[in-house]
Amino acid sequence: MDRAERARRSRAEDVRLRGFPDRASVEEAVAWIDAKSGSVAWEEVAVPKAAGRVLIDPFAAPFDMPACDCAGIDGYAIRARETVGSGDYNPLSFKLVNDAQALPPFSAALVASGARLPSGADAVLPFEAAQPHEGSIEVFAAVAEGSGVERMGQQVRAGTTILEAGRRLRPQDLGLLAMLGVEHIRVARRPRVRLVIAGPNPGMHLNDANGPMLHALVKRDGGEIESAITGAADRMAMRKALNESHADVIMVAGRTGTGPDDEAAPALAEIGKLCIHGVALRPGGSAGMGTAGEVPVVLLPGDPLACFCSYELFAGRLIRRLGGLSPAFPYAQREFTLGRKIVSSIGTVDLCQVSLDAPTAKPIGMADSGGLAALARSDGFVLVPPPSEGFAAGSRVTVFIYDDRLRPFQS
Amino acid sequence: MDRAERARRSRAEDVRLRGFPDRASVEEAVAWIDAKSGSVAWEEVAVPKAAGRVLIDPFAAPFDMPACDCAGIDGYAIRARETVGSGDYNPLSFKLVNDAQALPPFSAALVASGARLPSGADAVLPFEAAQPHEGSIEVFAAVAEGSGVERMGQQVRAGTTILEAGRRLRPQDLGLLAMLGVEHIRVARRPRVRLVIAGPNPGMHLNDANGPMLHALVKRDGGEIESAITGAADRMAMRKALNESHADVIMVAGRTGTGPDDEAAPALAEIGKLCIHGVALRPGGSAGMGTAGEVPVVLLPGDPLACFCSYELFAGRLIRRLGGLSPAFPYAQREFTLGRKIVSSIGTVDLCQVSLDAPTAKPIGMADSGGLAALARSDGFVLVPPPSEGFAAGSRVTVFIYDDRLRPFQS
Repeated sequence: MDRAERARRSRAEDVRLRGFPDRASVEEAVAWIDAKSGSVAWEEVAVPKAAGRVLIDPFAAPFDMPACDCAGIDGYAIRARETVGSGDYNPLSFKLVNDAQALPPFSAALVASGARLPSGADAVLPFEAAQPHEGSIEVFAAVAEGSGVERMGQQVRAGTTILEAGRRLRPQDLGLLAMLGVEHIRVARRPRVRLVIAGPNPGMHLNDANGPMLHALVKRDGGEIESAITGAADRMAMRKALNESHADVIMVAGRTGTGPDDEAAPALAEIGKLCIHGVALRPGGSAGMGTAGEVPVVLLPGDPLACFCSYELFAGRLIRRLGGLSPAFPYAQREFTLGRKIVSSIGTVDLCQVSLDAPTAKPIGMADSGGLAALARSDGFVLVPPPSEGFAAGSRVTVFIYDDRLRPFQS
Repeated sequence: MDRAERARRSRAEDVRLRGFPDRASVEEAVAWIDAKSGSVAWEEVAVPKAAGRVLIDPFAAPFDMPACDCAGIDGYAIRARETVGSGDYNPLSFKLVNDAQALPPFSAALVASGARLPSGADAVLPFEAAQPHEGSIEVFAAVAEGSGVERMGQQVRAGTTILEAGRRLRPQDLGLLAMLGVEHIRVARRPRVRLVIAGPNPGMHLNDANGPMLHALVKRDGGEIESAITGAADRMAMRKALNESHADVIMVAGRTGTGPDDEAAPALAEIGKLCIHGVALRPGGSAGMGTAGEVPVVLLPGDPLACFCSYELFAGRLIRRLGGLSPAFPYAQREFTLGRKIVSSIGTVDLCQVSLDAPTAKPIGMADSGGLAALARSDGFVLVPPPSEGFAAGSRVTVFIYDDRLRPFQS
């Protein structure tokens, strides 16, 4: 079956009480997502609030930095050639002058690191190399021209690009911009997400996990929740939730499966377009995507582990792209040796949770078992690609690590 | 000179107009920081707001998960042994019952994934394996006991620790806690930081870079700015800024050097204790630390690059520790090959900015040159330890990478 035919099939049929006749590949679903994330919208923000935001325009140095010849250290500005011949047993004396615009011959001026050098001066002597002495200093060592001096434009020349477009602004970048007098800057606007939490299925005894989890994931990926609708339990409520949105993305969690109450996909098919329903992904096989008007809609399964996995592969990718960030998983990758085999089925992408004890990664049960408890005990995941039946124990695998940077205080 | 003697020296002397007679080692300064970060304070926060916060108590499963035998998939709950003998050419018929507490013999009940299994049922048949037929279903294949079922306690047993103390809470952890009905949780309190920006040195023409940069760095490291004082320019203002604080940490940026106006260290020596002034670090050699009452005070040089480096090594470490996070740099580390030599002086830790073009890292000028413009063009840094004169071109070095995870959209 070719791609178009498979896409048609996975769209056309109502899967309720029948099961998925076929599923789109993860590759097709990702291609759909990427096609929906064209241009990056922008807004202007104050520089002190811009940490982590994505720069829209390249930023070039507005002038030479430093803008003049400056002292690079605290000390005495001096003419280097006048210190020739000085030594521990032959200190030379220089008159100490204050606030000099121009340095008179055989004199020295106190300067702080970063201050403009008086004209005529071509070196700065550190305090350690001189001894003050009632209106003058004694210099114990000759100093080379340029020593202790930062030349005009030495850091960067006017017009040189310092921050590239697409840069995720770091604390130090804010310092640079503030230093140069920049008060506001254009950054990628946060993608606005409508979050629809489907009503609980009958017979469920637990509280909703997906709302709090998805709120935090959207924030992590640079988006913001524009509106959150909970308890969309029937066709009418679901249709209403999918309509009248000013969001950039609509995310529905729950009611995507094959049960009689799984109204998310039929409601989307009614009010907009259901493009894909059912993806060859484990967990997350009942994920779907489509559009409500112009707004891309991602359907995430209600099972929290499946919801997490399909968020990571599809919805998170869309939000990251719309916000100008890399579409890749926001996790560090590292190679580990598999401590136990992973079994997968051909044709499906398996997202297998693993616990890490370097250099070993151990699978936590099967890909689709264990729920959030398994996810909580996991340090990251391994992706098993569609053509693979899994990996043997001892294989080298790439692990996407949930929290690579800040480790707990009791480990 | 032994450690105590060196510490005494670096404390005792006023360095202004004289230079640092000696400097504490980075190791000594880090030991001082670590000694000041004993216990982690806590507060209670709502679970949906707890992403990224550090868990104080281990969290154990309050009950078996699942709490009963559940459907693991959407489908028909059934007795497995009753399906024996069914096949494509010999479908067996089962009466369809609704909302059954107990499953009558030779019947099937519609269940959604996650729902409680009716008593008597021991398998769930996927919709694909059956055909509904006016109040009954025809089953085309025998199913094994336990198929499609999640057993009580299969995910985790009551009392098993799921989240360790010290865990930095992930989006999925919030989902788990919310699902289990946990509304509030004890997390490490954010360390409260008083930020004192010293007045500009005379002759400086640029705006303050350190305030915006340090605000963002403190936030990144899990702290919060309790109060920010700007323009502390003379001894009186500096003394006042160091006093009457309810902060966990006081950070002073600027006026730490050897110039006549460098009042931060003398003011701290007057109102509290100046324990270290001058560290064998480049850039950042005029950093200092001490206490105002019980509050640890970190003095950071005013030069923005030196301020950044000494923040990373000392103040950031203190804030991370007080907030229950790992003291390590919050950066991914990776090995690169040095594209040009790094020259360092023995006895000093050099923090050398590098640009990365895998597998090569290229130093950006000297460690202490180039200011924030160099920092902006840098992808990370290499630490040169005190006994080393640097690294030759072609050496393998560890780079701490500023932004390892989210790459820009135009690269």
